[in-house]
Amino acid sequence: MHKVIFDTDPGVDDAMALLFLHHHPDIDLIGITSVFGNASIETTTRNALFLKQAWNIDAPVAKGANETYNPNRPHVDWPAFIHGDDGLGNIGVPETVDIPCDSRPAHRFIIEMVRANPGEVTIVAVGRMTNLAIALREDPEIASLVKAVVIMGGAFDRPGNITPAAEANIHGDPEAADVVMTAPWPVTVIGLDVTVQTVMTRSLLADIVAAGGPRARLLSDISQFYIDFYENHVKDGMVVHDSCACVYVVAPELFRTRSGPIRVICGGIADGQTIQKPDSQIFPPNDWDNLPSQQVCIAVDPKGVLDLIAGTLSAYPNA
Amino acid sequence: MHKVIFDTDPGVDDAMALLFLHHHPDIDLIGITSVFGNASIETTTRNALFLKQAWNIDAPVAKGANETYNPNRPHVDWPAFIHGDDGLGNIGVPETVDIPCDSRPAHRFIIEMVRANPGEVTIVAVGRMTNLAIALREDPEIASLVKAVVIMGGAFDRPGNITPAAEANIHGDPEAADVVMTAPWPVTVIGLDVTVQTVMTRSLLADIVAAGGPRARLLSDISQFYIDFYENHVKDGMVVHDSCACVYVVAPELFRTRSGPIRVICGGIADGQTIQKPDSQIFPPNDWDNLPSQQVCIAVDPKGVLDLIAGTLSAYPNA
Repeated sequence: MHKVIFDTDPGVDDAMALLFLHHHPDIDLIGITSVFGNASIETTTRNALFLKQAWNIDAPVAKGANETYNPNRPHVDWPAFIHGDDGLGNIGVPETVDIPCDSRPAHRFIIEMVRANPGEVTIVAVGRMTNLAIALREDPEIASLVKAVVIMGGAFDRPGNITPAAEANIHGDPEAADVVMTAPWPVTVIGLDVTVQTVMTRSLLADIVAAGGPRARLLSDISQFYIDFYENHVKDGMVVHDSCACVYVVAPELFRTRSGPIRVICGGIADGQTIQKPDSQIFPPNDWDNLPSQQVCIAVDPKGVLDLIAGTLSAYPNA
Repeated sequence: MHKVIFDTDPGVDDAMALLFLHHHPDIDLIGITSVFGNASIETTTRNALFLKQAWNIDAPVAKGANETYNPNRPHVDWPAFIHGDDGLGNIGVPETVDIPCDSRPAHRFIIEMVRANPGEVTIVAVGRMTNLAIALREDPEIASLVKAVVIMGGAFDRPGNITPAAEANIHGDPEAADVVMTAPWPVTVIGLDVTVQTVMTRSLLADIVAAGGPRARLLSDISQFYIDFYENHVKDGMVVHDSCACVYVVAPELFRTRSGPIRVICGGIADGQTIQKPDSQIFPPNDWDNLPSQQVCIAVDPKGVLDLIAGTLSAYPNA
């Protein structure tokens, strides 16, 4: 069993990833931490509570950061054109959800859960890296106590999506991402290199709804707005960015990784770009030297990933 | 016939590229411009003259820049461990060569040749982009008078070689490269994405020597030091970076390109990185907007390239 804290900014593809974590038999979802990104922190936290209630998830929701690690960065508008004004595809999420958050802020929740379960917690982070960076700042020792960190973010051997250099999660808080990727904990980064290959077609989503009952139906309703957005980017369907990171936890054999330190560019026209120094390649002295090697996913079996997602999402048709 | 000015810092793989241009029947080599890089400007110019004399090349040699476009950049040591102290694999190039340079500096030579042959000149640039950037600064109109610019440099969908972010030619003068790649002339960039796949084995080089006579013999002698350097990087042989750019001029069908504006990062840990915004991809407003689309080579037929090089280098066994 993998004890997982899911750090998330729901967010449409976040919702799918959350249902995957909730359903998968090898995952013990011990906490959900919200972060700003796909929408404001008020909206993403509300959405996490909404999904917890709708899908009957036991794990607590802890409210996270509402601004970048470096607070001097200018505010960037929420991508309502991708995730909807409500962050969940404009399905009409109620203004408030009648269940409480955990009393701790997300970074404290992370620290305390990691310290309570030394060597056992996997953090799956699919939004900005802000909560993780704040947790590391407040308690650097957690780096040695976490089992694994799996991130959806970045673009390594291909262009970004929010700019030609950068992927949106990392671009949204580059300083935080640089802290997280250079810390001495084992990080695996699932970036655009593999996620954009992993496209759930409308037809596959319809199959999931047919097999998966009300939970899958809600997920499909949430996803339609996002699928419409993706019409300009993929032939048919939706890129399941965040679910890829969750699949990696239980089925790493569906991915190929490259080892080496990672830095994140902070500032300038490449702001938010992720750059790895592959361990297999020799360089003159440089700014990546003496940093921990992390894993970057450079290849994926998209069909394997999609099949696993589809089977998992459909697992409880009567729930 | 392609009228070619070869902007070069010989340099071992530069020497092979020069012999290719000299021998290929579709190339009319109308000038050689030297630039600092693989060695000092004194050494690269001397080497260009040495090869001109040894191989009986008609084209004049014009001496180019000895410092970066932004003169405040700190000096970087020459890569003598790759190209030898003499820049030509320590074969014992004479201190001086008894033929003169063209009277004009390289950038003036480029301007005047382009203006004398409007719409006909292809510039193949395989060193730092300094001469080209200075020519553009002095006479921006040449951008519309040049037929094509083909560059060996950069790394797009893979790590660099001098740093994890940057390839050496571009890293050696990022400001110049940004000027050249964003200018309104048609640029094709042959970067590490394709050159590192194009490895001439010792055995193929031996075949070329056997077939190609004294010119090929000198080229092989020059190349041995460089091949020894590459032992840590490739299984056997040498990456023929610069020759790839020359092959592109006569056989573009051996490459696949991607269209889009290119920027070069100047400063910071990604200094010298090349980033393209693919025309096929949609982004929010960004720093690549409204710049001319250039071509980046993203795939190559290595065997086709190597066969063409081998045949061309061996073409005059009795010369």
